[in-house]
Amino acid sequence: MYDVTEIRRDFPILSREVNGKPLVYLDNGASAQKPKVVIDAVTRAYAEEYSNVHRGLHYLSNLATEKYESVRGVIAKFLNAADEDEIILNSGTTEGINMVAYSWAMPRMQAGDEIVLSVMEHHANIVPWHFLRERQGVVLKWVDCDVTGALDAQKVIDAIGPKTKLVAITHLSNVLGTKVDVQTICKAAREKGVPVLVDGSQGAVHAPVDVQALGCDFYPITGHKLYGPSGSGAIWVRKERLAEMRPFMGGGDMIREVSKDTVTYNDPPMKFEAGTPGIVQTIGLGVALDYLMQLGMENVAAHEEKLAAYAMERLSGLNWLHMQGTAPGKAAIFSFTLNGMAHAHDISTILDKKGVAVRAGHHCAGPLMDHLGVTATCRASFGLYNTLEEVDKLVEALELANELFG
Amino acid sequence: MYDVTEIRRDFPILSREVNGKPLVYLDNGASAQKPKVVIDAVTRAYAEEYSNVHRGLHYLSNLATEKYESVRGVIAKFLNAADEDEIILNSGTTEGINMVAYSWAMPRMQAGDEIVLSVMEHHANIVPWHFLRERQGVVLKWVDCDVTGALDAQKVIDAIGPKTKLVAITHLSNVLGTKVDVQTICKAAREKGVPVLVDGSQGAVHAPVDVQALGCDFYPITGHKLYGPSGSGAIWVRKERLAEMRPFMGGGDMIREVSKDTVTYNDPPMKFEAGTPGIVQTIGLGVALDYLMQLGMENVAAHEEKLAAYAMERLSGLNWLHMQGTAPGKAAIFSFTLNGMAHAHDISTILDKKGVAVRAGHHCAGPLMDHLGVTATCRASFGLYNTLEEVDKLVEALELANELFG
Repeated sequence: MYDVTEIRRDFPILSREVNGKPLVYLDNGASAQKPKVVIDAVTRAYAEEYSNVHRGLHYLSNLATEKYESVRGVIAKFLNAADEDEIILNSGTTEGINMVAYSWAMPRMQAGDEIVLSVMEHHANIVPWHFLRERQGVVLKWVDCDVTGALDAQKVIDAIGPKTKLVAITHLSNVLGTKVDVQTICKAAREKGVPVLVDGSQGAVHAPVDVQALGCDFYPITGHKLYGPSGSGAIWVRKERLAEMRPFMGGGDMIREVSKDTVTYNDPPMKFEAGTPGIVQTIGLGVALDYLMQLGMENVAAHEEKLAAYAMERLSGLNWLHMQGTAPGKAAIFSFTLNGMAHAHDISTILDKKGVAVRAGHHCAGPLMDHLGVTATCRASFGLYNTLEEVDKLVEALELANELFG
Repeated sequence: MYDVTEIRRDFPILSREVNGKPLVYLDNGASAQKPKVVIDAVTRAYAEEYSNVHRGLHYLSNLATEKYESVRGVIAKFLNAADEDEIILNSGTTEGINMVAYSWAMPRMQAGDEIVLSVMEHHANIVPWHFLRERQGVVLKWVDCDVTGALDAQKVIDAIGPKTKLVAITHLSNVLGTKVDVQTICKAAREKGVPVLVDGSQGAVHAPVDVQALGCDFYPITGHKLYGPSGSGAIWVRKERLAEMRPFMGGGDMIREVSKDTVTYNDPPMKFEAGTPGIVQTIGLGVALDYLMQLGMENVAAHEEKLAAYAMERLSGLNWLHMQGTAPGKAAIFSFTLNGMAHAHDISTILDKKGVAVRAGHHCAGPLMDHLGVTATCRASFGLYNTLEEVDKLVEALELANELFG
């Protein structure tokens, strides 16, 4: 039984007010709030159990190492990875994708080689590939979504040619809420011998993920969107790809031996984890994922489906609101503009006066903004603790904005 | 008046016991403990004031952005940078040095170009340069320290030749405690037109730093060694060097515009800060540096000088102990081995039974271990909260270890 009222009590910040109104936090696509168990784990780690990891033998160092290293298994379970050694701990999806670009793609791609992307990608899954275009002549091949924001898997598959070395595609659009059929794409790409990076930044937050069933090669996630601490994250990398990767960052822990003339590297995953890691935020991420698995990601998904259906119904009833992204089965992420002169930033400011936190801007998705023919939208993105009443509050606040600007 | 008894009360973990004994935490070189103000700031940030930064316009986003961005100025003050736009926020020294390697060095160094290093460098200031050796034929030129662990600045200057493109040198050895006269090195290098990276990972922790007076070009610091949260850090980069650097990681925030065919980058420092940053740990780092500046880094330095002098006196009196690093003016970092069969790891384990936390191993300094002719040492590294009594406790525990293994 998924009791959202009870779940909300787990999140201290949700009981606060903003501008004299109860906080209606609909900016989960940017970052999610943290349950008390996560905050407490972070506090305890610093106040009672803190030390550096791996390189000590004293009590606190062993304790911190044990707690830190156990998170690898938690993430493996969360993503259903076959082996926890396929989990590289890092600071989030941006670092994860950059690692793939520098460690895997950069040394193996020549001028004219192609990367297939969708137009819905977040800048984190675009700019690292633009680097390869600028620096070594790699070609970016873009696949557009249709007018509803749906992405035809076959169009992505058809874009894979003999020069394609990688498909880099989102699991779930951070702007439109579109879910991408990455399983079909991965299956076809695998048959053509082309690895697939699936950006799990949003996808892992809203439904159960099984990287083995998806059949992808790289699946980065972001801790702070998963109700974990800022600066936490990981990337799952298929073993065959791990074996092909050279190190990304150099430093402590990722080496076996260093002399003046030579260096030998540690085995994966350590090979890709240089220096003192984000110890406490990683411990907090483990607690966050345990919390999610206790709730059950299928229950979270079912709750968010209700939110999505109700928000779709209410927002569709506003004839002065233009919604970007209406693909069937979309997640509870709603981008919109209002008819009339109101800029997305102004709408967001009015909503804020009513305690409703939404985002306004390009949402780090420049090519999609171009495709949609807008420079900015408002985005209300729901999380596991949001309620149907909060959908109503969003609509009420929008009605006020429309009265003022409409 | 520097009252260490009172200061210790600021650090919750220092009142705990380990193995039934009061904790004597002498592993500060690996990571420092956190004062309550830092822990409270982290807790508050998550429980009351959390949001993503930069891209929102709602109340919590503005609040988090303001707190996060104010840290840039705090770090600039701490390092006496001329301009806070020279401060790039990141996860610590390892990321900082890798950024310099990828963004500045990699595109401008050819086969045969040289980097001058000291034999005392930490792997974080070695492995990124080994990458350049392996990948593009850059030559590493090493300067040894003398038998006391002192590094002759003139030997470093003499190693700078016409093919030298960078000097990368530690401010303070994490193994020997040796302070390096980087000011003299920077002055000479500047006259020869060679930029200098000073690894401030340890140097910034033990005495006031003035990057303008030092005259270096890059000065990375690590938050978790500076009594701040794990995964926090920054690098100061001189404006001229910033202008020469291409981006390191790609993603949100570091761009101005992204389209399918083109990308333009933000101005520094944002150009080098991709994706959602370590929001809460950076806020915590700001609080930690404010705490240090309130104590006064010159007072911290004076206190640690007393600790260093007393520890030197006590440890020198143990004729079965061999100390690595006896350079004049060294910091309160003591590496040692014991005569007889005792391995550093065994010593550390015995000390731990007495509540004394020290580190044993190669301390991420392979070339220095080779130079010293050892595979591992014990290291007791002191911080601002350590006491003369704790020096005595270290010596007592060592005496026990010597009895057992001597």
